[in-house]
Amino acid sequence: MSLDSDTTLSAVGDGRFETEIVDGWDIRGNANGGYLLALIARAMLADCARRDPVTISAHYLSPGRPGPALVQSQVVRSGRRFATVSATLESDGRPVIQALGSFGDLAPISEPVHIDSAPPELPAPETCGRYAEVRPDGQANAFMQRVDLRLHPDDAGFARGEPSGEAKIRGWFRLPDGEPLSSLSLLLAVDSFPPAFFNVKPPQGWIPTIELTAHLRGRPAPGWLRCAFSTRFVTGGFFEEDSEIWDSSGRLVAQSRQLALAPRDQPDTP
Amino acid sequence: MSLDSDTTLSAVGDGRFETEIVDGWDIRGNANGGYLLALIARAMLADCARRDPVTISAHYLSPGRPGPALVQSQVVRSGRRFATVSATLESDGRPVIQALGSFGDLAPISEPVHIDSAPPELPAPETCGRYAEVRPDGQANAFMQRVDLRLHPDDAGFARGEPSGEAKIRGWFRLPDGEPLSSLSLLLAVDSFPPAFFNVKPPQGWIPTIELTAHLRGRPAPGWLRCAFSTRFVTGGFFEEDSEIWDSSGRLVAQSRQLALAPRDQPDTP
Repeated sequence: MSLDSDTTLSAVGDGRFETEIVDGWDIRGNANGGYLLALIARAMLADCARRDPVTISAHYLSPGRPGPALVQSQVVRSGRRFATVSATLESDGRPVIQALGSFGDLAPISEPVHIDSAPPELPAPETCGRYAEVRPDGQANAFMQRVDLRLHPDDAGFARGEPSGEAKIRGWFRLPDGEPLSSLSLLLAVDSFPPAFFNVKPPQGWIPTIELTAHLRGRPAPGWLRCAFSTRFVTGGFFEEDSEIWDSSGRLVAQSRQLALAPRDQPDTP
Repeated sequence: MSLDSDTTLSAVGDGRFETEIVDGWDIRGNANGGYLLALIARAMLADCARRDPVTISAHYLSPGRPGPALVQSQVVRSGRRFATVSATLESDGRPVIQALGSFGDLAPISEPVHIDSAPPELPAPETCGRYAEVRPDGQANAFMQRVDLRLHPDDAGFARGEPSGEAKIRGWFRLPDGEPLSSLSLLLAVDSFPPAFFNVKPPQGWIPTIELTAHLRGRPAPGWLRCAFSTRFVTGGFFEEDSEIWDSSGRLVAQSRQLALAPRDQPDTP
């Protein structure tokens, strides 16, 4: 059980890939959006024969339930440096996510030219609580067994009903059992933390993501990732959540932004 | 000559729309990315019969040259609140942009729930220079005749070879000749200013956008838009540019982020 083994797929021709939404990556029954993004991106990479996602956008159409899934992928343009690919992941006869991405090779990382930010300062991972540990009930959803998250103590208050008041969550990310980090794992990381907005409004159940875009800048060095999530605008019935992901060598390896429905617009079902 | 008249299209069945990349929206021959985005979004809106873009991502595949163009659109899912649409704009037999968006109705704007930012403070539009006025040669490219931009004096130094050193550009936006602002015009606004990065590295010709995502929060009130553009990370051969667009009533109406190739990776051709 690993990100790698749970995103395997088999090409069946014409850009079609058979795969599976593996049980255990869910939050209350719905597969995590980052896991679904890694799953479809792996098929798109295979279809265009490139190494890494560079930029990928996904629109979330219906909840991903465990079971067989089919990716239908189409290479829109294959250029010297990038291939652009459009794909749908369907399960149980319904479209689950629709994605559009450009893929290439992140290997030749050049030195930063200009940086107006720094990795978040975090206490050592050992002194930051796991998500289950910071909750008074000690419970974590299935998804939180699939990733190893450590929350900055200053940002973990929401979990015990004491939101910090600032829509920010910082923490560490790695894959369990020493699984190495790939560029695909960054697509998981960018959607792996509880919503930063929970530190303004306490958890209110399922927050539907409408769209998520991730930009990858480099393949991550081995070790913990430093992650920072923030929300600045909850307005018009929507909110954005931004992430920055830094690797153990201090390089920015991913940025993401997602648009989600603000809690007031959620249905009442949990 | 207006954004509205220069994005007209005619449906020819099966999600196909005939349109035209109108001459005069270019920067050195290549149509502006925001104009192309508004053009394809208008076809996607027509295809799904919704009122407004909510979130749209476009991948730029080849330069848009003036001439006839064809949009092939496909509604991936039509839900109660949003329709998700995938589309390609082709011209001269080549794909120019590929887009994926979710569309709905931005009319029922609720009050902001949480805002951790404010519109940029700007001197009155009359005291901010037009792009042509701030350039020593008084020249502006064709595109700058199609929009009415006024640059914050503190951020206009790049145009006379005196970059501020901070990758930020703030200013005002409106459409010329009193053309009203629509939600489509926000897609133009988010890509209408010179790159904020020019205030760190002076202009070096064409900066190819790989991908741009815009999130719309509301239809703009009449009047000037306040716009703020910034770049924080030039690294890995790429840079992002973020925008925030505020309307005359002080509401955030759009956010965008684009990923572009850093100048060092550009071909030497101008």
